[in-house]
Parts: sequence; C-alpha cells; structure tokens
Amino acid sequence: MPNDLLIKNVLPRGHRRGDVLIMNSRIESIGAGLIAPPGIEVLDGTGKVLVPGFVDAHSHLDKSLLGMDWYHREPGRGLQRMVADERDLRRSPDWVYERQIGRNAEVMIGNGATHTRAFVDIDTDAGLRGLEAMIAVRERYAAALTMQIIAFPQSGVATRPGTEELLDAALGEGADIIGGIDPCMLERNPVKHLDLLFDLAVKHGAGVDVHLHEAGALGAFSAELIIERTRATGLAGKVVISHPDFLGGVDEVSARRLIDGMVEAGIAITTNAPSGDPKPPLRLARAAGLTIGSGCDGALDSWGPMNRSDMLFKGYQLAWRNGLSTDEELDTVYDLISVGGATIMNVADFGIAPGCSADLVLMPGQTPVEPIVALPVDRTVIKAGRIVARAGEYLG
Amino acid sequence: MPNDLLIKNVLPRGHRRGDVLIMNSRIESIGAGLIAPPGIEVLDGTGKVLVPGFVDAHSHLDKSLLGMDWYHREPGRGLQRMVADERDLRRSPDWVYERQIGRNAEVMIGNGATHTRAFVDIDTDAGLRGLEAMIAVRERYAAALTMQIIAFPQSGVATRPGTEELLDAALGEGADIIGGIDPCMLERNPVKHLDLLFDLAVKHGAGVDVHLHEAGALGAFSAELIIERTRATGLAGKVVISHPDFLGGVDEVSARRLIDGMVEAGIAITTNAPSGDPKPPLRLARAAGLTIGSGCDGALDSWGPMNRSDMLFKGYQLAWRNGLSTDEELDTVYDLISVGGATIMNVADFGIAPGCSADLVLMPGQTPVEPIVALPVDRTVIKAGRIVARAGEYLG
Repeated sequence: MPNDLLIKNVLPRGHRRGDVLIMNSRIESIGAGLIAPPGIEVLDGTGKVLVPGFVDAHSHLDKSLLGMDWYHREPGRGLQRMVADERDLRRSPDWVYERQIGRNAEVMIGNGATHTRAFVDIDTDAGLRGLEAMIAVRERYAAALTMQIIAFPQSGVATRPGTEELLDAALGEGADIIGGIDPCMLERNPVKHLDLLFDLAVKHGAGVDVHLHEAGALGAFSAELIIERTRATGLAGKVVISHPDFLGGVDEVSARRLIDGMVEAGIAITTNAPSGDPKPPLRLARAAGLTIGSGCDGALDSWGPMNRSDMLFKGYQLAWRNGLSTDEELDTVYDLISVGGATIMNVADFGIAPGCSADLVLMPGQTPVEPIVALPVDRTVIKAGRIVARAGEYLG
Repeated sequence: MPNDLLIKNVLPRGHRRGDVLIMNSRIESIGAGLIAPPGIEVLDGTGKVLVPGFVDAHSHLDKSLLGMDWYHREPGRGLQRMVADERDLRRSPDWVYERQIGRNAEVMIGNGATHTRAFVDIDTDAGLRGLEAMIAVRERYAAALTMQIIAFPQSGVATRPGTEELLDAALGEGADIIGGIDPCMLERNPVKHLDLLFDLAVKHGAGVDVHLHEAGALGAFSAELIIERTRATGLAGKVVISHPDFLGGVDEVSARRLIDGMVEAGIAITTNAPSGDPKPPLRLARAAGLTIGSGCDGALDSWGPMNRSDMLFKGYQLAWRNGLSTDEELDTVYDLISVGGATIMNVADFGIAPGCSADLVLMPGQTPVEPIVALPVDRTVIKAGRIVARAGEYLG
C-alpha cells in the first residue's frame, strides 16, 4: 500500500528549512509552503531535522541475546572458543532463532535503520535453520526494513566438510551474499577459503563480504588476495571488506596503495568504529573515493555485551573515535551510517530528493548534525512514507 | 530534613537480592524481608539493581552550552584560539553563567550523579563571576548534588598578571581546590606555574588538580614535578592529575615508576576515557593501587560537542575503550565512575552498606553490570534518601 505524508517546516539534511511532501511512498517535492492534499497525514517538523534512514551495513541479527537472561562471559576466551561457545548456546532449548532475529530487527528499526545487510551463520551444526529464520523475519518486517542476507561460514568452510554444500544451498534459497572471515588465520589456507567464496559468488551471481580482523601486513595480504579475485571474477561493486582495521596498521604509503586498489577493483568497506587501535584511516579512504559503510555488528551477543543495535549511536562512536567535531566533519557521519551503506546495498532510489523512496528519520535538532551528539530517544522512523517507529518503539 | 525510604526486592551491587532500608538519610540495613516502618515510602526494586551514586570527578559546569543555540565550531583551531574563543563567548549577552551551570547540574543529576568536582575558569576577563555563579548553584542544588569547586586558571597564571590574586581570592571565597593546566606547554615555565599553585594550596589548606594533556615524556616530566611538590608540601591525598594519557605514551617500566611515584605521594588520577590513543593503562594503575576517578569533562561546550554529562555513558565508554567485557571487568567500571571519585572527594560515608549516606541509583538490570551496557533512560536517583531525579529529569 503506497503511503502519503507531509512533513511541515522541517530542516532536511542538505536543504533549507521547508516542507517535504511524500506521495505514493516517495518524496514528491521539497520546498516552502507546500499544500497538503486532502486527508494526508501531516507531521510538524518545527525544531526537527530530517535525515536519510540509517543503513546497518554489517549486522548479525542471528547472534543477539536481546530479551534473554544475562549471559555470563568467561574471561580469557580465544577466537575458536568464542565460536564454539556460540554454537553451544544455539543448541540450548532457550535459543529460538526467529524470536531473537525479530527482537534485534525491532530494536534496529526503532533506532532508525531502514536497511540492513545481515550476516547469518551457516555451519554443520545449525545447517540452514538460521537462514530460514532470517528469511521469515525479512518477510515479516519487509514493510519496515530492507534486508540483504549474507551466508556466513563463521566456523570455517575450507576445513569443515559439508559447509560448502550448505553455503551453496543458502545462496539458492534466499541468501544474497556469501560471507568469509580471516582467510589466513581461521583456516590457515587463504587461497582455498577465498576461492571457495568467489566460486560460489560467481555461480549464484552473488556478492562477497569478508570479515578481515587480521592485523597489519597479514590483513593487507588477505586484502590483496581479495582485490585480485574481485578483478578476476568481474565482481566489481559487489565485494565488501568488513572491519579493515589493518589499514591503520600499515604505513600510509601501503594504506594508500591498498585503498586505491580497492577503489579500482570496486571493493567497498564497512567499519564498526573499533574501540581500540589501529582503526581504518577514514579521511584517507574518503579522499580516495572509497565507498564506506558502517554497521552495529552483533548487538549484545555471546562474544561481548558492548555493541548496541543503534546506527545513530554508532555514528556518535565513529565521530568520537575519529575526532570529528566541526559541523562539516559531523555531517560526514551520515555518509557512514546511511548513504555509504545504501551505496553498498545498491539502493537506487536512496536519499532526500524528489523521486527517492521516503526512508527517513525525523529527530529534534537545530542542525542536522545535532542528533549525532545529542542521541535523542525521540526519533520518528519513516519507511516508504509510512511511520514504522516512534521513540525507539517499532509500531508494527 | 532527613529522609526515609524502603527499596524492596532489589539487587544492590556487592550484595544478594533483598531489601534496603533507609532511615534518616542513611542506609539503615540491607537484607531479606525488612519491615517497612509505618508511613515510609516504598519502592519496588523487582527487576532492578542498586548502585552507588555516580561521581563526576572532573566536570566543567561553567562551560556548557546546554539549551543554547547550536555553536558552530570552526575547523583547525589550536589550543590558544579555543581558550580565546571561550572567553569571547562569555562576553556575549547570550551568556548567563548561573543559568548554564544550573542546566548542566540538572542534566548531571538527572543522569545519576550525586557528587561532582567542578572546575570553574578564573581569568582576568571573567574575574570571579563564574565562581560566584558556581557557589550559588552549589547552594541551590545542595540537597541533590555534593559539589567541590576547583578554581581553574585555564588562560594561564604565571604569564597573566592579576590571575594569582584572583585565585587567592577564589580560594578565600568558596573554591575548595586550586587547578592547573599543562605546566610546560601553556606557559612554558612549569616550575613557576606549579609553585604558584602549590603555594596557594598550602596557604589555603586546599587541594590541587592539574590538567595534564602533555604527551609522553613531557607529560611524565610534569608529573614528576607534581610528585616532588606533593611530597614537599605534605599534600598527600589532596592532589589529582587529570587526563594522564601520557601514562600510555611512555614505556611500561616508566609508566610503572610514575604510577608507583603517584601512589607513594598520595596522588590520584581522573580519566575521561580518551577517544584516541594513548590512554592511561587502567589495569596497571589499578593493580598498583592508584586511586582512579572519572569525569565527563566539559559537556557540549565551545571546545567540542561530543562530551555528555552522563557518568553511566562515561562508564560505557571506559569499558568499551579499555576492552572490559566480562562481568568481573564491567563491575570495576563502578569503581571508576563512582567509588574512585568519592575517594578523591574524601567522602567518608560513601557506598552501599549500613551507615553510608543513601546516595544511590536504581536502574533496571538483571545484574549490576547490565546498566553499563544497556544505558537505561529509566534511572531513579536518590540523594541522602530522597528521590531527586527520575528518567533523566531532575525533580527539584
């Protein structure tokens, strides 16, 4: 059902204060003194700003413990142990995939996300149960949240027989993208790991999204392998490297070379505003024309409790960690938490301009950047012209 | 007026779930099935945790632009320019000291602070106007917020004639502590800067609190000068170094030596969870027995928009930046945002135990550490047994 809405006297990002008319789920016009067609719902935008809907370009909806009993994390766990702990958790009778994915989706929408790229673990324990729940949740919330699903072999694929076939099936059954992780460190065979992913991507016409936690020169090496395979397979525009903190762990000449290589190969990055150092050199990457998205990662999961499924909060952290504080700098945060992710998701009609889908967030603020520092609870989330959340609450 | 209160079925930090009886503004007893005296107000603590009131041990209440027009910060300002910009701002007719200090105090209390150490700028432009407003606000909010005032010569003292006399007068008129800043860099004469401060401290029986943004070896040198003067003047227990990020910028042997020197001299530190690196090595400092407090610094001021006057949020940032994620690690956050600051302020009756002043925050949570990651808006702030704020709103 197409939706109509008139937002009066609001300050949209990139425009002067005025009215925004939404007809048939799209922005019809932006200007002063627009006349409301009869019967149309009118929102008062006085004292408010209007920004594009947030894009959580790196989420793990199938990991969240939201609404469950507090999870006691043991000290000193390594990577393999944390992966195993998570598989164990999912065997417990308390774990219900669709409920948990849905809870995280509602929090995400409530906080302003209109789009997400969601990883879902695929392994020989869980099979495709996570994927099936993710697809069900995608359908349930389709009118509020556009979702791309990434089949993610977190437990490994080159070294775990049966996983490749599951990934193949996942891409046939509704996953849009094939995920990968730490090609060198997790399975100690980067060529086999990446070739498996890229072969599956080519077979299904899918994208690729690789978690790359590897540090410095090792991460740079894995990135080079990804760049080579992206060129060879013609997957420009469909490949993402997530968590590329290694770009801050190599010298600036190397970082420039890697970033230029990614730009030329048509590879984008997503960053989650790492809490430590090194972190990706965002100014350098922006200047080189690299497409940069961001995501909230796994929110309140067995790995750790600190991530929140709130892209505006993520924007605050990105600004804080990267020393952005002038108005001009803070405005670029919306490129990270919104526009960049939409580019990665190939959303054609994204933005605040006539013809764009009306995916928007209305918040109190004197300037569009004020919400990034004020983090208001008061957010009206609009998806295709319909109000889907108010003050953090998903409205159904 | 003494206050009574019974909180039923709550989980206090460091105790089993039970009841907390407050009589005559103090915690009377903690246990199961406590009987409410007739007429006493009863709070239901089901699903909630009780933690000690937050202590903002490093605030700048006289800098906040809360509630004012959005302040456009120009790019590329250096330290001297930012100090001058702030003096200019205070000459504008829009600036009203007492209003701004009061606004920040109310936000601080609403978010859970029951104590603060507040810097107030003393310079030859403003004279003692900021101090007088601060003292008025301290009196106005005395039933909700315990405040120590630090006379802060941000514009310099060794190189600005007239400032020393103003500081002397400030300590005579109600300031409790003398502040200092970057002894080497600001005035390029660290001995003169520090000797002035310590002489004034000795004269008035006041404490000393020095902002130390100087990096690495330079910060270490200034810290050594402060250690020497603390020993020489017998001011053990009354000296604080704020923002000691240099401790993360020297090798670990030097950091240990400096920390041991501070512990032996009776010097504490406050950290504001720096957004960049280096940051103070908190684990090392804790293990050495250093007293560590934290503060929100200037919240939404002309320097930058990112600080929030919310000690629980500060606790989240401290946990996130320092990689604290297990329950045991997260519990130490309360030492940073509460207990450590109370120790610095020499609050004798602080904590959750019979006999302590009932300065507490009641929040939803399954475990006392959950609010640090959930950052609930729902906070009931209790000062000396009286409810002074609910859901972020100061109640008067």
